[in-house]
Amino acid sequence: MAFGEFDLIDSYFTHRQHHRSDVVLGIGDDGAVLKCPERSELVVVTDTMVAGVHFDQHTPARAIGHKIVAVNLSDLAAMGAEPAWISLALTIPEIDHEWLTSFSQGLRDICDYYGCQLIGGDTTQGPLTVTVTAHGWLPQGSAIRRDGAKPGDWLFVSGALGDAGLALATQKKQLRVSDEHYLRARDRLYMPSPQVALGQSLRGIASSAIDISDGLIADLQHVLKASHVGARLSLQEIPLSLAMTESVNQQQAITLALTSGDDYELCFTVPESRRGVLDTLLARSASKPICIGRITSEPGKLKLELDGEPWQLTQASGYQHFSTEIELNSNEHE
Amino acid sequence: MAFGEFDLIDSYFTHRQHHRSDVVLGIGDDGAVLKCPERSELVVVTDTMVAGVHFDQHTPARAIGHKIVAVNLSDLAAMGAEPAWISLALTIPEIDHEWLTSFSQGLRDICDYYGCQLIGGDTTQGPLTVTVTAHGWLPQGSAIRRDGAKPGDWLFVSGALGDAGLALATQKKQLRVSDEHYLRARDRLYMPSPQVALGQSLRGIASSAIDISDGLIADLQHVLKASHVGARLSLQEIPLSLAMTESVNQQQAITLALTSGDDYELCFTVPESRRGVLDTLLARSASKPICIGRITSEPGKLKLELDGEPWQLTQASGYQHFSTEIELNSNEHE
Repeated sequence: MAFGEFDLIDSYFTHRQHHRSDVVLGIGDDGAVLKCPERSELVVVTDTMVAGVHFDQHTPARAIGHKIVAVNLSDLAAMGAEPAWISLALTIPEIDHEWLTSFSQGLRDICDYYGCQLIGGDTTQGPLTVTVTAHGWLPQGSAIRRDGAKPGDWLFVSGALGDAGLALATQKKQLRVSDEHYLRARDRLYMPSPQVALGQSLRGIASSAIDISDGLIADLQHVLKASHVGARLSLQEIPLSLAMTESVNQQQAITLALTSGDDYELCFTVPESRRGVLDTLLARSASKPICIGRITSEPGKLKLELDGEPWQLTQASGYQHFSTEIELNSNEHE
Repeated sequence: MAFGEFDLIDSYFTHRQHHRSDVVLGIGDDGAVLKCPERSELVVVTDTMVAGVHFDQHTPARAIGHKIVAVNLSDLAAMGAEPAWISLALTIPEIDHEWLTSFSQGLRDICDYYGCQLIGGDTTQGPLTVTVTAHGWLPQGSAIRRDGAKPGDWLFVSGALGDAGLALATQKKQLRVSDEHYLRARDRLYMPSPQVALGQSLRGIASSAIDISDGLIADLQHVLKASHVGARLSLQEIPLSLAMTESVNQQQAITLALTSGDDYELCFTVPESRRGVLDTLLARSASKPICIGRITSEPGKLKLELDGEPWQLTQASGYQHFSTEIELNSNEHE
C-alpha cells in the first residue's frame, strides 16, 4: 500500500520550500525534470537511516529530517560538490501528522540553508526508514576522490571528533557527563553540520577526502585502501571539544575520537606543494582544519602515536587488530 | 549499524555489470561522478518496495531486484526519458548470500537490458526495504507531463491491463485460474516490462502520460486532476489478455483492468492533430497501444461506458464513488 504517490510529503513541502531556477518540474509528476549547468559533472550520493539502527525512538522527528539530509550533503562535501537537489524515500508505519510536520521542518530547514530543493520521492507504509539521494555539481574533472592520497601528503580533519559518540555513550549510560556538555554533544549527534563550504574550497587542494561517518579509523582506512598507502597519526593533535576534554580522560577521548562515528567532519590529505594554498585559504575562512598526521608509503599500515610514543586502542571497537599498527582489513593486504 | 558503505552490494556488481562511458566514477567513493549530455534535461524518479506491503515472503529475490528497477524505469518512460543510471538503497535484516545473489542478478539483468548502470547507494540492516532512484535524459523541453491533456484528445493504453491483479487475486485465493494462465499473469506481477521504448517515441506526440502502477482509474485521475479535464472510457476497448478473458467473466475482467495496479503499462493522451503521426509510428513499432476513450471538458468527470451503455464498478476497490460518473477525489472538485 502506497500513500498515494508523493501527495503526502508534497503537502508538507510544495508551498514552503526554496525554489531553484534549475528545477523545470518538481514534485507532482512521475519524475522531476532538471536543468544541468554546462561544463559540469553530476555527483549522486545515497544514505539510509533505519529506526532502531541509526536512531532510536527518542530521536526527535525534526532531528531525523535534518540528519538524513546532513549525512547526504556530507558525502557531497567529501567529493567537493555543491548541493542542488534531493529525493526522499520515506517509509512510515502510519500517518502521524505531528511527526510528519516536525520531520519535514527539519528536512526543509537544512535544505533551505544550503539552497537545496526537494524534487520528489516516494512515501510508503512500513517500518520507519528514511532514504535520501542527493545531487550536486562539480566543475569537470574536479572531484576529490578517495584514491588520490600520496606518501608525504599531510592528513587533516576539519573539526573536533568524538562528540556524537560521547552523546551516544551518555544516552546508553556508558558514560556520565554534565547536562551542559551532554546537550552540546547531543546537538552534534542529532543536528550534524555537513562541511559543505569547506568541501568545495578543497577542490584543487586536497589529494583525497572522505567524510567521517563511521569513525576516523574506519573511514581513513577506506582512503588508505583506495590509495594503496599508509598513515601515521599524531593523536595529541586530534581536535577535541571542551565537552569531551572536561567529561572523560585522555584515553577515553582519543578512543571516542578514533572509533565513534556520526561526526560528519571531513578527513582529507594535502600534498606538501598545496599546503601554502591551503593555509592562505584557511586564513580567510571560518573553517579551521587541523593537521593530525601524514601519509606513508606502507600500504595498509596505520601507526598511532601519542606525543611520539606508540599508542594502543584498548576498548573493543569492532576492529580486528588493536595493536599500534593497524593492518587494513582488506583482501589485498591479508 | 551499516554494512560498511556499499561494499556488500559492490561485490555483487562491480565486475559484472555493463559500464557506461558517461560514468566517471561509479560505486566505491563517497558519491558517483557522472557526465551529462548537452542540451538535455535530467529526469529523476524514486520508488520504494517494502516487504509485506509491496511483495510477500514468497516473492523470489530475483523478481524483487527486477521489479524495483522496472517500476522506476516505468516512471522514466512515462516522462519520455531515456534511462541512464540507478542508485540503490537496500535495507536487509541479515546478510543472506543466496538471497543477495538472486536479488542482484534480477537487478543487473534488467539494468543491462536497458543499458542502465548501478552507480552507488547504501546497504543497511533493518526490515527488508528496497528503494531505487533512477536517472534519465530528455532533449530540452520534451518532457511528457501529466498536465497537458486537452478536451478532445484521444486516450490510449499501451497494453493489456489487470494481469498483475489477476495473479495477486489468485495468490490470495480470491480467484481460481488454470496453472497456465496463472503463470503468465504471475510473470507480469513479478517481472513487469517498463514501456521504455514507447515512452521515448511518444515525445512530441503525447500531450500527457502516466504509468499505470495503482490501477487505470487511480492513475488516470492524476492526469485528469493535473490537466483540469474529464474523460469518457469505452470499456469494451480495454485490452485484456487471454489469461484474463479465459479465467474470469467480463465484469470481473473490467474491474481488474480498472482498479488493480502493478501492470506498468502507459496511459497517454494524443491530440487529434498528432494521431496520424502516432499511427505512422506504431505501424513501424512492436508496441500496439489501444485507444480506449477520449478526454472531455468536464473537470473531474470520468464516464465509464460498455458498448455505449453506462457501466458501474461493483466491487469495492477503495474509491469513494462507484457510480458511472466518478467524481475526482480532490479538494478542487469537492
